[in-house]
Parts: sequence; structure tokens; C-alpha cells
Amino acid sequence: MANIKPLGQRVLVKRLAAEALSAGGIALPDTAQEKPQEAEVVSLGTGGKDDDGKTIEFSVKVGDKVLISKYGGTDVKIDGQEYLIMSESDILGIVS
Amino acid sequence: MANIKPLGQRVLVKRLAAEALSAGGIALPDTAQEKPQEAEVVSLGTGGKDDDGKTIEFSVKVGDKVLISKYGGTDVKIDGQEYLIMSESDILGIVS
Amino acid sequence: MANIKPLGQRVLVKRLAAEALSAGGIALPDTAQEKPQEAEVVSLGTGGKDDDGKTIEFSVKVGDKVLISKYGGTDVKIDGQEYLIMSESDILGIVS
Amino acid sequence: MANIKPLGQRVLVKRLAAEALSAGGIALPDTAQEKPQEAEVVSLGTGGKDDDGKTIEFSVKVGDKVLISKYGGTDVKIDGQEYLIMSESDILGIVS
Amino acid sequence: MANIKPLGQRVLVKRLAAEALSAGGIALPDTAQEKPQEAEVVSLGTGGKDDDGKTIEFSVKVGDKVLISKYGGTDVKIDGQEYLIMSESDILGIVS
Amino acid sequence: MANIKPLGQRVLVKRLAAEALSAGGIALPDTAQEKPQEAEVVSLGTGGKDDDGKTIEFSVKVGDKVLISKYGGTDVKIDGQEYLIMSESDILGIVS
Amino acid sequence: MANIKPLGQRVLVKRLAAEALSAGGIALPDTAQEKPQEAEVVSLGTGGKDDDGKTIEFSVKVGDKVLISKYGGTDVKIDGQEYLIMSESDILGIVS
Repeated sequence: MANIKPLGQRVLVKRLAAEALSAGGIALPDTAQEKPQEAEVVSLGTGGKDDDGKTIEFSVKVGDKVLISKYGGTDVKIDGQEYLIMSESDILGIVS
Repeated sequence: MANIKPLGQRVLVKRLAAEALSAGGIALPDTAQEKPQEAEVVSLGTGGKDDDGKTIEFSVKVGDKVLISKYGGTDVKIDGQEYLIMSESDILGIVS
Repeated sequence: MANIKPLGQRVLVKRLAAEALSAGGIALPDTAQEKPQEAEVVSLGTGGKDDDGKTIEFSVKVGDKVLISKYGGTDVKIDGQEYLIMSESDILGIVS
Repeated sequence: MANIKPLGQRVLVKRLAAEALSAGGIALPDTAQEKPQEAEVVSLGTGGKDDDGKTIEFSVKVGDKVLISKYGGTDVKIDGQEYLIMSESDILGIVS
Repeated sequence: MANIKPLGQRVLVKRLAAEALSAGGIALPDTAQEKPQEAEVVSLGTGGKDDDGKTIEFSVKVGDKVLISKYGGTDVKIDGQEYLIMSESDILGIVS
Repeated sequence: MANIKPLGQRVLVKRLAAEALSAGGIALPDTAQEKPQEAEVVSLGTGGKDDDGKTIEFSVKVGDKVLISKYGGTDVKIDGQEYLIMSESDILGIVS
Repeated sequence: MANIKPLGQRVLVKRLAAEALSAGGIALPDTAQEKPQEAEVVSLGTGGKDDDGKTIEFSVKVGDKVLISKYGGTDVKIDGQEYLIMSESDILGIVS
């Protein structure tokens, strides 16, 4: 499979289908102006550095199911499947 | 119950019904351009770090009743109930 | 009485009536584009932290009469009375 | 007389009449898009703090005649006289 | 061949043809509002410095295939071939 | 003569006439969208401080002929002559 | 010849003619929204200081052929010849 290593504090995620959402007990209201969407973290970026040069740890890990802002990130298709590259700071929360 | 752990300095809150508001002695004026709303803190985020890498403490705790800006945060429905994920800095105050 | 503890460097203030203003010798011009208003500090917030983690002292104290920007802050009604939650930095000065 | 202590790095100034200006040798062109105006410093604020917590000294003192930007500051009337509360950084220069 | 050394944290990249993309298993959706594009890193810039004066390492190296934002960078033609000069921070990820 | 001491990192300059410009070998193109103009530094401000509280030295001195941005600064007339108060950072270069 | 010493981290450059460009193997596409242009560095500024007061070195030197953004800088004519004063950060790369 072709692979993408996100640069810096970015992550690669894959949107989860709406069916998966209701099965997992998470549903997203139709009326919200900006609906978050559920996705799964596929790979972490090369990492960022803070002002003192220390590596910033990611708060998510591969396999985490996350809520992401609907409009964040950039779409990319790999081997026929759609993914999103987005800044970790655009992830709202981890679903468990 | 499905669960959401907010990322960083975000919190998960649940809006309180208007009835609860007047019962508690807090009412919100109809005429204000941006009306704050009362909500209850359901869970705290993974936490933020300051410039020196020290963890930033949350000023609210789970169960706190808080006033939130009407337009802050992002709606999300969990197990059929509506919640809000929002930055702690968008919480105006704690109701007691 | 229901109570609100503002979060961070915010304060809770109560607008003073126009009558109180003229009695106190402070009057506000009708022609100014942004008229300041007189108010009384009701409670201080939980406080802010500077870059080194030290608590930032409030420059106002409870009971201070202050001039506030007309458009700053957020209205909130507590036990039937209107208050404002606003950042301390939106307070222009202390009236004495 | 009612009194106002400006908050932080703000100052309270009183505009000088146009007559005073020409008498003092300072005249302001009619054609300039943003005309500075002459004013007198009435009182200094509570003072600001720099990043290291040290007090920032005011560069003006009470009684200084200053040039101020026409659109800076907020009008306030005290005991029937108009004043301006403005950030010291909006003062362009000291007239001597 | 004429040569360009990008200044600072910039890199010089060469867009890869759409054919190369599908052959490599990477395809870009037609519907995305901002489509990333695949490119190859041709040369690295003179490098940036962080706040402490230490050189910031590049996260990409010459020859890396990268995904770039469609609208980032500036076009330049060298010896008849088109290139892009862009900030490294506008590179979304490394394709492998 | 009335005098103005600019505040902070500002300088007081006096525009040089167009005749002076061509005589000195400096001419300004009619077609440029933002034409710089030649001026002479009349007085330096009270000075600025950097983040560590150290005084920032001026890069220009009284009497320097400088190129200034056409739209920078604020006009002020002193004893019938027009001057400009402007930030030193709006000076493009020193003419010699 | 009249001379201009740019202030701070600015440089003085002279645009190179389009003929020079194609001769040197560098051509600029007609279709690019913002076309870079080739220029030669004529003089360096007085230099900038970083947050610790240390002088920031220029990454270009006098005589360097550089690619500049089409819309960056300010035009100025010296002894009948057109130059540009621009921030070094608006130089995209060095041509060799």
C-alpha cells in the first residue's frame, strides 16, 4: 500500500461511516452549524518541536477513534481510499 | 455509554434546560446580543501545556455548573444526548 | 442568592443607574461614538497566570466603581438583576 | 471633584482648545487624513507590567502637553468637563 | 543547469504528473475543495533559525515525494521546466 | 520654536521638496503604487525597550536624509511648517 | 552616485531585464498568478536584531542574483535607475 507520513504535528485519519457512528452510540445532530465527524487515526506525523526544541508528544495514537471538525484537514485518496491529513489541534476529542 | 475525552484544554459540557436555570435563580435576558447559557461540566480534556512544558490546571471540575458563551463550542450527540465540546477559555464563570 | 465566579482574569460588574452617575459628578456625553458606562465590581475571577506561572493580581477590587466600555462584556441576569461578566482589561478606569 | 484613575498603561488627558494651539505655535493642517490633537495629561494609570513582571514606566507625566491621535481614546465627562481615557501608546509625542 | 537555492525554511519542488500519481497508488479526489498534489523535493533552502539561534532541521530531504497544498508556493520555470518554491510548512506529508 | 519630542520608537521628520530630490540624484517614479518620499530626521523619540528592558538604539540620527513610505506617519504643523511623526520602522533607508 | 542604505533587515535590489533571464536559463511562466522576478542584490541593510539582541546575519550578499516576489518591496529611482527596497524575507531564493 502507498503510504503517507504527515509532516510535523499533523495526523492522517480515515473518516468512519455514518453507520459505524450510530452503532457506536455516537450520533451527530443534523442542525449543528459545524458538525464534528468521527474518524480513526491512521498515522502520526513526524512531530513538532516546542520553543525549547523539545519534541511535542501526540495526544492521540494510531487506532484512536476521534471527533474531528467537519471542515478541518485536506482530503487525499490513497489506493482508492479517502483519507484526511489534518493538524492534531483540529481533533476535538477521543471517542472510547 | 459511549464516551468522549476532549483533547487539550477543551471540556465536554451538557447544556442545562431553561427550567433548571430559573429554578436556580439564574435567568438570561432576552435582549442581550450574545446570551450566555448555563451548562454542566461532564469531562475535562487531556490538558494543555504552558510555554515551559508544565501542565495547565483546569479552573473548572466535573459537575461544575458554568456559564458558557452562546456561540462557543461544537455540538455533538452521544447516546442520543446533546453535548458541547469547547475550549475552557470560552467558559465565562462558575455558577454556585 | 445564586452566585457566579468569573473564570480567569474576568470580573462580574453591575451597571450603575444614570441617576447615580450625575449624582456622583460623572456624566457621559451623548455624542461619543463609544460611551463608557459606570459600574460596580461585584466579584473578581479565579485569576490569570502570566508566562512564568505567577498569578496576575487584579487592579480592581470588589466595590470599586469603574468605567467600562459600552460594548464590552456579556449580560447575565442573576436572581432578577442584570450583571456583566467582562475581562478586567475592558475596564477603562476606577472612579473615586 | 469626581476623579478617575485609568487602569493599566492608560492615561487621562484633556483636549486643549484650538486657540491654545495656535498661541503655542502648534497648528494642525486641515488637509491631513488623521489630524493629531493637542491635549494635557491629567492623570496616569495604575501602570502596566512587562513580561518579567517589572513595572513599565510612563514616558509622560501629569501636566505634559501631548499630541494625540484624533481617533484614539474614549470620551468621558467628569463634573461637566470632557476628558479622554487612552492608551499611552496612542500618544504621538510631547510638546514643549 | 541554472540553479535556485531557496532562502530560509523554503524548499524547491517539482510537481509530479497525474500519471505518476495513479501508478504510485495515490489518487486525488476530484471533489475536494483544496486538492493536495504530489511533488518531488529538488533542493532545500538555506535553513531557518529558532528563537535560540539554533538551526531548524528540515523534515524532508532531496528526492522525497511529498504531498503539497494546491495553492501553496510560487511557480518558477528553470531551463524550461516548472518548479515551485514553497515554505516547508506547506508540505502536508511524505509519500512512501 | 515650539518643539515635539516623539514618544517611544517614533521619529519626527520633515519632508524634502521635490526639487531637493532631483538635485540630490534621487527621483521617484510616477508609476509606483506606493512612492517613497525623501525626508530629513528632525528629532528622535524617547526610545523603545526590548523584551529584556534594554533600550533599543535608533538606526537613524538627527540630520539623516531618509526614504519614507508615502502613507506612513501622521502630519503635524509646528510654527507653520509641516512635519511627520512616524515609527522608525516605517523608514525604508538612509540616503547618502 | 546617490546611495541608499536600507534600514534593518531590508535589502536594495535591482530588477534584471527579461532578456537576462532567458539567457541565464531562468524563465518565468506567463500563467502564474504571482510571478517571481529575478533581481540583483545591490546593498544590504543596517541589519536586524533577534530577541536576544544578537545581529541577524543576511542570507544574501551583494551581487547575488535572487528571485523576488512580483509584488514585494517599494520602487525607488536613484540617478535615473529603478531599484527596489524590500525585506530580505521577501526574497524567495538565490539563483546560481
